[in-house]
Amino acid sequence: MNMEVAGRLTALRRKMAETGADLVAIGPGAHMQWLLGFHPHADERPCMLFVGAEREAFLMPALNVEGTRENTDIAFHAWSDDEGPAAALADALADVDAAKARRIALDETMRADFALLMVDALPAAARSFTADTIGALRMRKDAGEYRLIKENAQINDRAMLAAFAAVRPGVTELEIAEVVRNHYPTEGAKAVFTIIGSGPNGAYPHHATGSRKLRDGDAIVIDIGGTKDGFFSDMTRMAAVGRPPDGYEEVHAIVDAAVEAALKAARPGVQAKAVDAAARGVITDAGYGDYFVHRTGHGLGIEVHEPPYLTSVSDTVLETGMVFSIEPGIYIPGRFGIRLEEIVILREDGPEIFSELPRSVHLAGR
Amino acid sequence: MNMEVAGRLTALRRKMAETGADLVAIGPGAHMQWLLGFHPHADERPCMLFVGAEREAFLMPALNVEGTRENTDIAFHAWSDDEGPAAALADALADVDAAKARRIALDETMRADFALLMVDALPAAARSFTADTIGALRMRKDAGEYRLIKENAQINDRAMLAAFAAVRPGVTELEIAEVVRNHYPTEGAKAVFTIIGSGPNGAYPHHATGSRKLRDGDAIVIDIGGTKDGFFSDMTRMAAVGRPPDGYEEVHAIVDAAVEAALKAARPGVQAKAVDAAARGVITDAGYGDYFVHRTGHGLGIEVHEPPYLTSVSDTVLETGMVFSIEPGIYIPGRFGIRLEEIVILREDGPEIFSELPRSVHLAGR
Repeated sequence: MNMEVAGRLTALRRKMAETGADLVAIGPGAHMQWLLGFHPHADERPCMLFVGAEREAFLMPALNVEGTRENTDIAFHAWSDDEGPAAALADALADVDAAKARRIALDETMRADFALLMVDALPAAARSFTADTIGALRMRKDAGEYRLIKENAQINDRAMLAAFAAVRPGVTELEIAEVVRNHYPTEGAKAVFTIIGSGPNGAYPHHATGSRKLRDGDAIVIDIGGTKDGFFSDMTRMAAVGRPPDGYEEVHAIVDAAVEAALKAARPGVQAKAVDAAARGVITDAGYGDYFVHRTGHGLGIEVHEPPYLTSVSDTVLETGMVFSIEPGIYIPGRFGIRLEEIVILREDGPEIFSELPRSVHLAGR
Repeated sequence: MNMEVAGRLTALRRKMAETGADLVAIGPGAHMQWLLGFHPHADERPCMLFVGAEREAFLMPALNVEGTRENTDIAFHAWSDDEGPAAALADALADVDAAKARRIALDETMRADFALLMVDALPAAARSFTADTIGALRMRKDAGEYRLIKENAQINDRAMLAAFAAVRPGVTELEIAEVVRNHYPTEGAKAVFTIIGSGPNGAYPHHATGSRKLRDGDAIVIDIGGTKDGFFSDMTRMAAVGRPPDGYEEVHAIVDAAVEAALKAARPGVQAKAVDAAARGVITDAGYGDYFVHRTGHGLGIEVHEPPYLTSVSDTVLETGMVFSIEPGIYIPGRFGIRLEEIVILREDGPEIFSELPRSVHLAGR
């Protein structure tokens, strides 16, 4: 086992002791990727890593054994399509002393049928999720992770500039998205999502980019992200074709002030809900509270959304090294939406913003 | 509600009655896509469709309401990031009379935390999965679905020819994959997976395509698939650089004979395990039984893997209109692997193969 994996397993066991979890079950996804540096092919075949107080064991589909064996020396309990997973699961659970577990923590992101295998195998155990063990550990990024997120953010800045350059009357949302998607590969990255919400479509925070053509007077929400080397980017900026709609500048200034307020509130030792409150307070005081329909932010790293979540009820205490978005928005149905999103890493003296682009509206000519 | 959705809901309720499921809970994935023709943005926010004996209800994150409202007239029970989903979930469950449900069927593919919300909300209900309701309904494809799968298969044939053309000494697996990935967009499709397993890597059925360079005497497994218009393709063929390894032709002939035996065995009214047995029998009789480490096939449609699964224990009765793969393989560790995969639709008189490419080895010059 390499040093990094050994270190992360030790950190996980410390968190397990803190949270009272005797056994952790992790599916082939981001949590496993963080812990082991890889995960086996994910499909409908049950595949789980079990971490007990002292030992680990892997429930592994037989056809993934050869391809993953070189990545880890954790014991495999393999099962073939013919046998099904029942016997291998029982063996793997015995290997980690699961019968003694009073509380199990399940990977909240894994498939329902994987999780219910565990619930049925250990019906007396109390249940929790790995959000407060592995999820909590993933929140704080080290210097290597910082560099990878920074590189992704710089690529995303240039993808945003490519989007800005494509904004003009008559172009469709999908055409702008295509320009963005084509940018990432020029820098060795891949596109992950491209929300281009023009005119009234901008009022849908998760708008499905479509064939609407931009016209004079449209405001456009551009929320894009890519991935390189296993990390992600995520940023939202605004553009407009010609003169923005009436009242647009005022609302933009309110959202920008909300970002600034959140940046000021985000300090080590502060609860995440205080950052949400800071952004939300600015928007509510300006009379737009009902139009800010989502949380203020989410963590980012090896997933686009990961802990910490910055909601009005989150008591997560912010610490240095945490990476998260600050992205207040105001969405006025039928008219326009404005969201401004920064990804930051929390330093001793406050947040450092990854993007190097201003949050001003990109005004495209008519 | 449009006619197609109404028809599928009626078919689902018939299956629910047959299988004793009083309530079905579906996450934002392929099952929902099939049933409603869309699904809301999938992330960590609980989002589920509930189908009871008489009514439907949607648990919906507030920020997805505007973007999805136009797609369905099913009642939304929306919740905001601030409120959390608890109250909306209780309302939605009351709306579908969940308290009376003796058996609930959960979407086996949805997130563990979504499923456990249901388990905790209805602790007395027996549990099953939607594999035998929606999964079963999805197995049989109609004429429109057939046409879309055929179009995807034809695109995939041409992607395979592009891969063949790229096979030569010195090229890496990743470079061949890149050629394949670039082919799909030229036909309006997207790449989904590209397994290029050269030489000994071919012996890993789920090999992670890497930087190994092809050399003279290598056999190469090429297993690729793309997507267009919401349907998928999946096919495996073999290539070789120069003279294939000793014994290669013999093993190839055995795998091809296994495909032929499975094609002959697949008839309406036959259990899926009989098809697996036919392919496996040929390989076992030839002395390679231990090297065929996976099932014979899987369904394909709006997912790359979906029911029916053709395993040695599957008692699923095959019916006309079912679409599935036939893909026996022989994997000899340290030497080479051979898999030949066809996607077929079952007709009255047997399987119709979608691909128009022969299963012979593509021999590339040195």
